[in-house]
Amino acid sequence: MPQDGPVIAVGPNPDPEFDAAITGGGGVPGPLRNAEGLVWIDSTSVPTDIPASIRWVQLPFAGIENFVDSGLLQKYPDITFTSAAGAYSTTVAEHALTLLLAGVRGLWHRETTWDPKNAAPRVGLLGGSTVAIVGAGGIGRDLAPQLRALGVNVIAVNRSGTDVTGAVVVTADRLDEVWSQVDHVVLAAPATAETKSLVNADVLAQLKPHSWVINVARGALIDTDALVAALKKGAIGGVGLDVTDPEPLPADHPLWSIPNAIITPHVANPPQHLRPALLERVEVNVRRFANDMEPLAVIDRSKGY
Amino acid sequence: MPQDGPVIAVGPNPDPEFDAAITGGGGVPGPLRNAEGLVWIDSTSVPTDIPASIRWVQLPFAGIENFVDSGLLQKYPDITFTSAAGAYSTTVAEHALTLLLAGVRGLWHRETTWDPKNAAPRVGLLGGSTVAIVGAGGIGRDLAPQLRALGVNVIAVNRSGTDVTGAVVVTADRLDEVWSQVDHVVLAAPATAETKSLVNADVLAQLKPHSWVINVARGALIDTDALVAALKKGAIGGVGLDVTDPEPLPADHPLWSIPNAIITPHVANPPQHLRPALLERVEVNVRRFANDMEPLAVIDRSKGY
Repeated sequence: MPQDGPVIAVGPNPDPEFDAAITGGGGVPGPLRNAEGLVWIDSTSVPTDIPASIRWVQLPFAGIENFVDSGLLQKYPDITFTSAAGAYSTTVAEHALTLLLAGVRGLWHRETTWDPKNAAPRVGLLGGSTVAIVGAGGIGRDLAPQLRALGVNVIAVNRSGTDVTGAVVVTADRLDEVWSQVDHVVLAAPATAETKSLVNADVLAQLKPHSWVINVARGALIDTDALVAALKKGAIGGVGLDVTDPEPLPADHPLWSIPNAIITPHVANPPQHLRPALLERVEVNVRRFANDMEPLAVIDRSKGY
Repeated sequence: MPQDGPVIAVGPNPDPEFDAAITGGGGVPGPLRNAEGLVWIDSTSVPTDIPASIRWVQLPFAGIENFVDSGLLQKYPDITFTSAAGAYSTTVAEHALTLLLAGVRGLWHRETTWDPKNAAPRVGLLGGSTVAIVGAGGIGRDLAPQLRALGVNVIAVNRSGTDVTGAVVVTADRLDEVWSQVDHVVLAAPATAETKSLVNADVLAQLKPHSWVINVARGALIDTDALVAALKKGAIGGVGLDVTDPEPLPADHPLWSIPNAIITPHVANPPQHLRPALLERVEVNVRRFANDMEPLAVIDRSKGY
């Protein structure tokens, strides 16, 4: 049997499913010595004693601060390291869509009797509405075409003005103009000094009484007190939060008792989705490596991600 | 003012917005006597004493069993009757997707405390799964591309084998082969003798423990007792029902107390969505009628829909 592909090792311990992903990508699973690539699948340790034959190492997370802090990338300056950035955006985008649809179509209210006259007014239509995705990176690139398929007009806001399929792109410096033009908002931006309390009382006042605000990014993007006040006076349609500030949300927090505040406890990317997403990314990156293409999500040592 | 278009009546009572839709389609709103077409916009009655001048009657629903059962179509064998099939499919498809996502991603369980370890196992991933749309007419044609945008493999089942964009089509005579191959099922078939109790104990036994069954069509498509039994023993993941059998679902029905049975009281196409959609369909069909084209959704008397 010809073994034309590069030998790729899995570490720290063997794993048949990752071997299969390597084979699927055109690589040859094999021991670390003499391997050209290393797929590191352990969340609690950092690879050491990497042989000189290794040219590429795949790390298992999108956020790889722990690996950066360990000095790994500096210790092996000639190796290309890749993170799993973007590999998990599919499930997070799907969660954002679920929260948005559940909100707009009234599923935040659990029916307990057959009362269509009471229920029908809660049932909105997402199709035909305008949705802003604020911070349109990997999650936004997944979400925009999904919304488009529902007939939604998508405005994607990002810093660089990078194209997003299915969306009209607005650069972040013009975000102020966006709030009053949209029906709903999905937050998918990283937590930085600039995005702290991005959705504050002033922004909430510009949204519509039927507007839903969805946050699958970081809790700090919303001024929680302003949000609670807006919800209590019916200024917006509701909120779907997978992340909160503070997080975890205390048991006595007022958000828990607001009917049109749907809260999921930071589970948009639950543990059971990690492994399949990483297997898929490994197969893709082995294929790229085997074909002398740059693998996805190469870590920039100067940026640390 | 020239009145070249056909005279179309609105019944049982006048309605200026429907008159405007008729005018928009190139017709002339007018009284029933001597009219060529009749747009029937009442949900609670059946037209009687239709004059011989009428060649076309537009009915206000997609599911027109009540009109069929009344004998209306047999009483006037020379009249072309059209249903509103397809006119409401956008909002119904969106509702089906909402129920499916809310089920698969665990939103049927309302979180009341921040407990990710407890919540995460309920969060499934629709992307990558296989979904059967059973009865892929207008709703299925809308839903299939929406599911495809989420990375779902869509199997569309219909009688004719008509192509459905985004789906692999299987003809209804091979439906038996489908159940065991899919993760989830969306029912969108008309209520006929053949579709009664289509989802019965035998079918439920072929589905997977994580399978969600969504019904936005007619309650009679599911054997409710078999469904309750399957849910109680955890044989399937859950059910999202916008229609039930019996309907209305009695207050003491066991489905109300099953947590993973999401019920909405036949509001996938709520009144506030109905009227704009019917107005649009009337305009389109008046235009087709005025131009000697077959109007949309002509009822086949032999099929009953």
